[in-house]
Amino acid sequence: MPATTSKYLTGDNAAINDFIDRFDVFLFDCDGVLWSGDHLFEGIVETLDFLRSKGKKVVFVTNNSTKSRQDYQKKLASLGIPSEIEEIFASAYSSAIYISRILKLPAGKNKVFVLGESGIESELAAEGVPFLGGTDPNLRRDITQDDFNQLADGSALDPEVGCVLAGLDFHVNYLKLSTAYQYLARGAEFLATNTDSTFPTAHGFFPGAGSVSVPLINMTGQQPTALGKPSQAMMDSIEGKFQLDRARTCMVGDRLNTDIQFGIEGGLGGTLAVLTGVCKKKDWEAEDAKFVPAYYADKLSDLRAAKP
Amino acid sequence: MPATTSKYLTGDNAAINDFIDRFDVFLFDCDGVLWSGDHLFEGIVETLDFLRSKGKKVVFVTNNSTKSRQDYQKKLASLGIPSEIEEIFASAYSSAIYISRILKLPAGKNKVFVLGESGIESELAAEGVPFLGGTDPNLRRDITQDDFNQLADGSALDPEVGCVLAGLDFHVNYLKLSTAYQYLARGAEFLATNTDSTFPTAHGFFPGAGSVSVPLINMTGQQPTALGKPSQAMMDSIEGKFQLDRARTCMVGDRLNTDIQFGIEGGLGGTLAVLTGVCKKKDWEAEDAKFVPAYYADKLSDLRAAKP
Repeated sequence: MPATTSKYLTGDNAAINDFIDRFDVFLFDCDGVLWSGDHLFEGIVETLDFLRSKGKKVVFVTNNSTKSRQDYQKKLASLGIPSEIEEIFASAYSSAIYISRILKLPAGKNKVFVLGESGIESELAAEGVPFLGGTDPNLRRDITQDDFNQLADGSALDPEVGCVLAGLDFHVNYLKLSTAYQYLARGAEFLATNTDSTFPTAHGFFPGAGSVSVPLINMTGQQPTALGKPSQAMMDSIEGKFQLDRARTCMVGDRLNTDIQFGIEGGLGGTLAVLTGVCKKKDWEAEDAKFVPAYYADKLSDLRAAKP
Repeated sequence: MPATTSKYLTGDNAAINDFIDRFDVFLFDCDGVLWSGDHLFEGIVETLDFLRSKGKKVVFVTNNSTKSRQDYQKKLASLGIPSEIEEIFASAYSSAIYISRILKLPAGKNKVFVLGESGIESELAAEGVPFLGGTDPNLRRDITQDDFNQLADGSALDPEVGCVLAGLDFHVNYLKLSTAYQYLARGAEFLATNTDSTFPTAHGFFPGAGSVSVPLINMTGQQPTALGKPSQAMMDSIEGKFQLDRARTCMVGDRLNTDIQFGIEGGLGGTLAVLTGVCKKKDWEAEDAKFVPAYYADKLSDLRAAKP
């Protein structure tokens, strides 16, 4: 049963030790937990090392769909966080393994039309999933009268496409949206790497993956299966990949309606909110709060205070 | 009070004569009423001439925002329908006069950032409304890191923009959506020429103006003021332009949830549904039907049968 009150860990070494002992796996949201924008929070590297040294598995869980796991490992390194590829779980990867291992498109209908960047393509390729669209330079252009005709009559479409995967696409345009729509109108499965409406950068908000898929939702009246937090399709993918015991897994995050919801709806043994990002204590103490973290701390590095 | 049953006109000359006598102005939806795709329905030109010969005012009301009234007059001519500019009311024109005559943006904050094509630009220019964006070739390109920085810090933005107008833009891209979002986030008024999710062509559906604005709705949580049918802002513009008597005006269309809704909510004296387009009799006879036309006919040219 989800918590209705939240246990405060900061400065309480006995509570921290008990918290750490309860879990084998920690799933980390990144922005707002480990860093903000380009600024790594103090003590993060040491805290992650501390958890690893106690035999805990750490997993970085991100909705950023533009990056493959390799790309994301480089980003972590550039911020000063050493990591293994196997510790990274991004929505592009989540989408690729959902398609290859769960969706299992039938032969002759197994190609994916991608709205997105190279991170998605890398992960699909690694899983052996055939795809088109994506970064194809032939689609980075204006729509023509021939396109209108050939999309409408289907002659510009690949009959083997059985799925449209929409992620964050910095090169989204009318031609790509029209093509994706035509595949959906012909019955293709509709997936989204994630549905975040905005893409936060160091200095401001830009259109997110959810703003790439929403015209298609609007046109078709269909909702995509989303593979990022808080979708449980992502949790299923994580469980399938790591064979984790949900009861001994804790989700750590800074947002109630993505991270904490993700952990609670996934039936994890615990959730930890940190106050270095979006949510504040008053958010889950509000009367209409839907998602209350089991634990909270001022900052992630407070866990290190328990080091013996 | 709106009708709960609908009077059938086809073949009933007395009813047709009574119908025609009740109105001075007929507002016509076009696609599905006058033509379908590129195919003009039989007897349309004669029916329009017949109405004009009886002293009726005819107005062509279209949500197509890519065309100025001049452009639309050419389209009508290409289909064989003679018309005057003053008989045409398109959502680009509706938007321009809403901005210039109703919104009245204050000096220093009176520029419009446009997502759309040249039809919108022509109508804004004709009303003396300063604008940017639109067909500007400088925005038809990929977003760069400089754009990210300068949009977020505002240095790439024109401080005089007080309004974002989103219409159908065949050249929509990430840079334009990001720019429009930044203006909205800074308090610009949010207008949409219309919110049709799809753009019907002769052979199929493509993204409509509503699919250009929906990412911005998704990002900001704001709904735009829409200037196309069924928005009453368009009816107010039509009334302001033609000084019509709503009680002696009839809306003619083929869609219940745009055309007929538009006429009923506008308090017009009547609505006429024709069965040459989207809606069928069973649609308004359904128990949950919201908008019942006061009259219906198999086709518009049935009105000519009453010619004495």
